Amino acid sequence: MHSDVAVLGLGQMGSALAAAFLRAGHRVTVWNRTEAKVAPLVAQGAHAATSAQEAQHSAPVVVACVLDYPALAEILDPALPGILVNLTSGSPEQARAMAGPRYVDGGIMTTPPGIGDQGSMILYSGDQDAFETAKDLLSVLAEPVNLGADPGLAALYDTALLGIMWATLTGWLHASALVTADGATAQHFTPLATRWLGPVAGFISTYAEQVDAGDYPGSDATLDVHLATLDHLVHASEVRKIDAALPRLFHDYAQKAVEAGHGTDGWARIIELLRAKAA
Amino acid sequence: MHSDVAVLGLGQMGSALAAAFLRAGHRVTVWNRTEAKVAPLVAQGAHAATSAQEAQHSAPVVVACVLDYPALAEILDPALPGILVNLTSGSPEQARAMAGPRYVDGGIMTTPPGIGDQGSMILYSGDQDAFETAKDLLSVLAEPVNLGADPGLAALYDTALLGIMWATLTGWLHASALVTADGATAQHFTPLATRWLGPVAGFISTYAEQVDAGDYPGSDATLDVHLATLDHLVHASEVRKIDAALPRLFHDYAQKAVEAGHGTDGWARIIELLRAKAA
Repeated sequence: MHSDVAVLGLGQMGSALAAAFLRAGHRVTVWNRTEAKVAPLVAQGAHAATSAQEAQHSAPVVVACVLDYPALAEILDPALPGILVNLTSGSPEQARAMAGPRYVDGGIMTTPPGIGDQGSMILYSGDQDAFETAKDLLSVLAEPVNLGADPGLAALYDTALLGIMWATLTGWLHASALVTADGATAQHFTPLATRWLGPVAGFISTYAEQVDAGDYPGSDATLDVHLATLDHLVHASEVRKIDAALPRLFHDYAQKAVEAGHGTDGWARIIELLRAKAA
Repeated sequence: MHSDVAVLGLGQMGSALAAAFLRAGHRVTVWNRTEAKVAPLVAQGAHAATSAQEAQHSAPVVVACVLDYPALAEILDPALPGILVNLTSGSPEQARAMAGPRYVDGGIMTTPPGIGDQGSMILYSGDQDAFETAKDLLSVLAEPVNLGADPGLAALYDTALLGIMWATLTGWLHASALVTADGATAQHFTPLATRWLGPVAGFISTYAEQVDAGDYPGSDATLDVHLATLDHLVHASEVRKIDAALPRLFHDYAQKAVEAGHGTDGWARIIELLRAKAA
């Protein structure tokens, strides 16, 4: 094996991964389905494999970042000798179907420019011996966060965290629509919004214990109070002719919980409604 | 005037305000509609007014924190000699109806236990001379954030920030429902979620400029990519029988924007859909 690591797939993300390994001084083999993406990495010092199979036999750790799991299945060598670190986007179920010795799945929680930044994180789960072996190598990409042996957990946490991102971004866009309707700028409002995420993170930390305990005391603010203030938000949206679907969804959750007799509980109680379809 | 400040309304929040003024060594007059709430503050050194009117004539700054604007209207003395700082919850429209010299409106961005903590913030807007006069006094409650002369802006920013809170909390509850369905605990997942809010705050800061410019380049992630990954989230929710209304709403916004030809734009483009009702 003439390389430390092989990278399969040189899209924007795969190219960023390979470049980060090269910058850290590693010997890197690269392969891509189309050759055009290969040249810039060869110029940075990578070795170009002539086939996906050759790449997989060139290094003890193979990092895959291709279009999707079917694309990976097409190129994966069943006789792969080393560790497979699969950073291809997919579902927890797809990742679990790959479970086995030397298989580590990962979820990249940053965009390509964030690769190589220790403030970024990549989630990993799967074979723990393989993870420990590859950990130092992987740490040049971003901070490696180990979620344990279930290979589906990295993909599940990844999609769950993206869900929080869309919620926060869309809540902020709705808030920005409100304040800009009255003449403020998004850039005036937004420093307060990002600062406000600090206390909100504090609420979440408190509520995490409540979720695990299944007990949701409304000691900071009750659902009765939330419901009344949500009325203000829906109203403020409507008078400004701003789409109120998002606050109305929260309003309906709060109302349903209050009507079920939980008006003195806190917001974390809403998780029971989200899970209610499981009943 | 024998006091530095008078506090009208001694609910949980009003009592916390009065206590913070007392702790800072100020002479404080208090009044409440029902007398039971008065005694604990008198025990801490407050002067009890025998009427709301007496309270309003006892100090150069009157802080009101009562049930709602109609309750305030009932007790407000038209001959109030000093500055009125109104921390009563209400709409921007209600605040604007109070506009005048010596009127400052406020939105408290914390719960009663957060009063007196300089990490907390209270938003103010309204008469700027009055704000400047009262600013040092008010700074013992929380960091005062001045939003300028429009008395409605504090209430508008307040409700807008609460909207972001509900969005983030509910996004996090949905994410917690997902990961706990597969055996993880909310307390294992949540430190990653709160850490993830850091990069999300970074996205928001970038998007604020885009919103003000009305131009939404998808340089970090395009709506096409968001739509594909939102499919994963909706699917992951459905297979776990978790309510998917929240991710489906985001999915529908993304799909609508993509269908309108904006697939290569970024997420901030969604604000145009939220505002579309204004067209």
